[in-house]
Amino acid sequence: MFKKRENVTDIEEGKYLSPKFNKDGLIPVITMCSKTKEILMHGFMNDEALKKTIENKEVYYWSRARNKIWRKGETSGFVQKVIEIRVDDDQDSLWIIADIGNGASCHVGYKSCFYRSISLGKIENIKKLKLNFEEKNKIFDPKIVYKNETNPTKI
Amino acid sequence: MFKKRENVTDIEEGKYLSPKFNKDGLIPVITMCSKTKEILMHGFMNDEALKKTIENKEVYYWSRARNKIWRKGETSGFVQKVIEIRVDDDQDSLWIIADIGNGASCHVGYKSCFYRSISLGKIENIKKLKLNFEEKNKIFDPKIVYKNETNPTKI
Repeated sequence: MFKKRENVTDIEEGKYLSPKFNKDGLIPVITMCSKTKEILMHGFMNDEALKKTIENKEVYYWSRARNKIWRKGETSGFVQKVIEIRVDDDQDSLWIIADIGNGASCHVGYKSCFYRSISLGKIENIKKLKLNFEEKNKIFDPKIVYKNETNPTKI
Repeated sequence: MFKKRENVTDIEEGKYLSPKFNKDGLIPVITMCSKTKEILMHGFMNDEALKKTIENKEVYYWSRARNKIWRKGETSGFVQKVIEIRVDDDQDSLWIIADIGNGASCHVGYKSCFYRSISLGKIENIKKLKLNFEEKNKIFDPKIVYKNETNPTKI
């Protein structure tokens, strides 16, 4: 769909988008809150989701849990308006800066999916490596917002 | 190596790290500059790289180009000191906040790998979708820093 990847110089220093999708046809996406600069989520897009995101200036992902294109906010109402999309040197990942208003991004109910930090330093017991909650309160109740939808988290 | 993933509640709301590695044994990593909050790079870690990063508080990745663990800054000197590591809701991606001093992160010579933005809005010709250079100047000359090393960018 996009420009063919022909040589390293064009990919790294060129002026045209020719993204690399992995063997599943997906490209990783980092989504950042335009107001606070915190990372909201890490997702994936296929070529169609990327095209829709560029054209509509609202973020579409590929849902690996549901195996389909997913307009973020479809169920929850927490739409992500695109402020900027960056592509990296070898064009195999994207960084999106998005405006989510006063909304949230995480299906568990927190603003960011990254609500826990990992304890750093010497590891005593790697099976009990502590996580610390950096977000103390949920923004919404997922039971109310998502009702009977299947939880996308897989073991 | 880490705690076994046993149920969704423990994974999402629990206090222990049990990361999910993909079928290649890797977990995606978002690396952010602690000073400017810009995204420096998107990489991957295997379990060993994650363990080393937590213990040594310096970022180690899995190099897919060289197929080995890679201490960032090994060749360039641009080491990434870990300030914080966050894990997401289903524990299948990481967000690292790192101090790189006055260094750079991108093998092409720019500070961030994400030095280009994608033009947004109605697409006239998807094969000529314009990229805009958001970083104007390289921080270092990769020919001097990396000498004869193979370029990791693949077509």
